[in-house]
Amino acid sequence: MSDLSKTAAAMDARDPLAAKRDLFHLPEGLIYLDGNSLGLMPKAAADRIASVTRGEWAEGLIRSWSKAGWFTLPMTAGDRIAPLIGAATGQVSVGDSTSVNIFKCLAAALQLRPERKVILAEGDNFPTDSYIAQGLAALVPDIELRYFEKGDNPAAHIDDDTAVLLLSHVDYRSARVRDMAAITADAHEKGTAVLWDLSHTTGAVACDLLGADADFAVGCGYKYLNGGPGAPAFAWVNPRHVSAMRQPLSGWMGHAAPFDFTRGYTPAEGARKLVCGTPQVISLSALDEALKLWADVDLAALWAKSRAMTGFFIEAVEELCAGQPITLASPREETQRGSHVSFDLEMGGFEVMQALAASGVIGDFRAPSTLRFGFAPLYLSFVEVLKAAEYLSAILSTREWDDDRFRIRGAVT
Amino acid sequence: MSDLSKTAAAMDARDPLAAKRDLFHLPEGLIYLDGNSLGLMPKAAADRIASVTRGEWAEGLIRSWSKAGWFTLPMTAGDRIAPLIGAATGQVSVGDSTSVNIFKCLAAALQLRPERKVILAEGDNFPTDSYIAQGLAALVPDIELRYFEKGDNPAAHIDDDTAVLLLSHVDYRSARVRDMAAITADAHEKGTAVLWDLSHTTGAVACDLLGADADFAVGCGYKYLNGGPGAPAFAWVNPRHVSAMRQPLSGWMGHAAPFDFTRGYTPAEGARKLVCGTPQVISLSALDEALKLWADVDLAALWAKSRAMTGFFIEAVEELCAGQPITLASPREETQRGSHVSFDLEMGGFEVMQALAASGVIGDFRAPSTLRFGFAPLYLSFVEVLKAAEYLSAILSTREWDDDRFRIRGAVT
Repeated sequence: MSDLSKTAAAMDARDPLAAKRDLFHLPEGLIYLDGNSLGLMPKAAADRIASVTRGEWAEGLIRSWSKAGWFTLPMTAGDRIAPLIGAATGQVSVGDSTSVNIFKCLAAALQLRPERKVILAEGDNFPTDSYIAQGLAALVPDIELRYFEKGDNPAAHIDDDTAVLLLSHVDYRSARVRDMAAITADAHEKGTAVLWDLSHTTGAVACDLLGADADFAVGCGYKYLNGGPGAPAFAWVNPRHVSAMRQPLSGWMGHAAPFDFTRGYTPAEGARKLVCGTPQVISLSALDEALKLWADVDLAALWAKSRAMTGFFIEAVEELCAGQPITLASPREETQRGSHVSFDLEMGGFEVMQALAASGVIGDFRAPSTLRFGFAPLYLSFVEVLKAAEYLSAILSTREWDDDRFRIRGAVT
Repeated sequence: MSDLSKTAAAMDARDPLAAKRDLFHLPEGLIYLDGNSLGLMPKAAADRIASVTRGEWAEGLIRSWSKAGWFTLPMTAGDRIAPLIGAATGQVSVGDSTSVNIFKCLAAALQLRPERKVILAEGDNFPTDSYIAQGLAALVPDIELRYFEKGDNPAAHIDDDTAVLLLSHVDYRSARVRDMAAITADAHEKGTAVLWDLSHTTGAVACDLLGADADFAVGCGYKYLNGGPGAPAFAWVNPRHVSAMRQPLSGWMGHAAPFDFTRGYTPAEGARKLVCGTPQVISLSALDEALKLWADVDLAALWAKSRAMTGFFIEAVEELCAGQPITLASPREETQRGSHVSFDLEMGGFEVMQALAASGVIGDFRAPSTLRFGFAPLYLSFVEVLKAAEYLSAILSTREWDDDRFRIRGAVT
C-alpha cells in the first residue's frame, strides 16, 4: 500500500460525514468530480418528487397550494439554506434562477443609493453575472457598469459614484476565495453595497454573511446543494435593508396579500418580497428535500473536509503526475481555496477530460487549457479522490504528440 | 332522462376529443372545474418526471445537458406551444414565470420605441401583470404606467407617448375575450406595440398571434397546458421584432455561445434570446411531456368544445337554479367567452364553493361574490358539467339565512 493509499484510507476512516454518502444515488463505476456543476441526486429527492407529482399534484391539485405548503415553500427552503451561509431564519428566499436573482438584488442595491450610478463588477466573474449587469445597465439610463480585473483589489476601484460591488465569493475557474469580511468592510467605508454570488460556496465553503455584514447574496441550488438540474436559486438580503429595499420583479407571489387581487403592489414583509411569480413547485420541492440533508451536518467538519480533500487531490496529482506539463491553477493555501481544483495542461486538456470520462471520472474542461475537478464534501471519499488522480496520471503518461496533434494511446481510452 | 341529461350524453357521444380523457389522472369522485388554475396531471408527465429524475439526473448527471437535450428544451417545448397560439416554430421560448416574462417583453417593447415612455395597462388585469409593470416603471426613470378601466376601448387611451399596451386576451374573472386582431390593428395605427397575456387562452381558446400581427405574448404553463404546479411560462415575439429586440434579463442561457464564457453578452438568434438563466429542468420536462398531448389535437374541435361546454353549463345552471339569486358574470355570446364561466351570488359564495368542494366539485371563489368554473376541453365530459350544475342547484336550494349569516343545511355538505 502506497503512502497516498494509506492516507486516503485513514482520512475516510475518520470522516465524520461518511454516513451521508449512502443518502445519495451513486452511479456505478463513476467517480463524480463535477458536483460543483450539478450535484448527485439525494435518494429522498426522487421519492419527494414522486410524491409531489402523483400525490400533491395529481390528487391534491389546486388544494395543495395551502394543504401541501406550496405557497410557503420559497421561504421554507430558504430557512434550510440560511445556516449554510451565515444567515438567519426568514432572510433567504428561494426561486427563479441565479441570473434573475442577481438582477433583483443589483436593482435593489441601486434603488437604495439612487444618487450613485455605477455597478462595479469583476470582469472575470462567471459570465451570467456580467451579462445581467449589462442588461440592467442597458435598461436603466445613467447606470454605468465598470469592471475590475483579476488580481485587482476591488476596493481600489470604488469611487463616490459606486452604488454596488458585484463579485463571487469563490471563483468559478480557480476556486480562489475572496475575503468577504474585509472586502465588505472596505466597500462600506466608501458607502458601497456588496452583492455576493455564492454559487461555488454554498454547501462546501465557509461563509458568514451576517458576520461580514454583507448587503445582498445570491446562489445556486443545483451545485453543492444537490437540488437537481436547474434547481431554483436563492437570494438573501441583510435585514437592515429589507424594509427599505424594493426589487423590480414585483410579481404577485411576493405581494403582501396575493389573493386579495388588489391593483397596487404592496410588497410582503421580509425576504418574501424577493419572490416574483408562481414558483416551479416540482423543481423547488426537489431542492427542498435535498436541503433536509444539511440539518444535522457539522458545518465546521464539512468545510474542513473540503479543504482536506482538495489539498489531498493536489498532493496526489503533483506526486503521481510529476514531470508532466500540468500546473496547479488554484490557490495552494487552503484558506484561500474553494472546493474545486483546477490544473492547466499545456495541450490536449479536452482530450484528457474525455479519456478521464471514459475511465469513469467526470470533471470539467474549461477552454483553453483548464481541467477542473469539484469536490463535494458531503458525499465524496478520499479513496475516490486518489483514484481520480491515479487515472489522470495514467492518461497523462500515455499521451503522445503526432504533428502537433495530441493523442492518447489505446490502453486507457 | 331529462333533456339536459340527454344533451350531455349526446355531446359526449360525439366528442372528438373524448379519447384524451384517459391520458390524464382523474382523482376518484372529483369533478374538476379548476383546470384554469392548475390542470390535471397527464399520466405521461409522471413517467417523464421519474425518468428525468432517476435516469437523466441521477445517472446521466452533467452529461444530460447535451445527451438528454436539456439545453434545447426551452425551444423544444416552445415549438410544441406555437400551434396553439398561432405562432410558428422557433418563435416561442419556455422558462421562468409569466411575471418574469411580462417584464422581459415590456422592457423589450420599450426599448424598441425609446422615444415613447408610457405603458398602457388594463386596470383590472390579473394583478401580477400590473405589479410587474409597476416594478418596471419604478426602476426606469421617465417610464409611466397608465391604466384604462374595464369596459373602455383600450385604443381610445393610446396617445403619441404610448409605447406598449399590456392586456389579457381572456379576462381572468369574467372570461371575456378581447378582439386581438382589431385591438392590435388599432394600436399599430397609433404606433403602439401590444403585449398579450394568454394565460387563460392557451389550450382552450382560439388564438392567432401571427394572423393578428401581434407584437409580444406571454402565457402560463400550468393551466390548460397541464404542465404541473408552477410550470414554466412561455414568451413569444413577432419575428419582425426579434433581431432588433433586446431584453434586460440577459442571462447566460440566452447567450449566442454560453459555453464560450465571454465577458460581453451577445444574444442568441431568434426567441432563444428570451431565455435567461439555467432552466428548472424537472418542471420544464413535465411541461414538455404534457405538451406532447396536443400534437394530434384538432384545434378547431377543441375551441368548439370549449364554447359548447361553457354554453351548456350556463344553460344548465340557469335552468336548474332558476329563482336563485345567481347571475351570469361571463359573456353569454359564445365568441366573446373564454373557457371559464363566472356567476355572481348575492351572498355566501365562499360557503357555496366549500359545499361544492365537499360534494366533489372543485371551482374557484373570487371575492367578493364570484363563483368561477373552468372547463378544460381536453379532458372534461358534458356529463360532468351537468353534474356540477346539479350539485350547485342542490346546494343553493338548501341555503338558509339566519340573522344575516349564510348557512347551508346539513343534507348536502
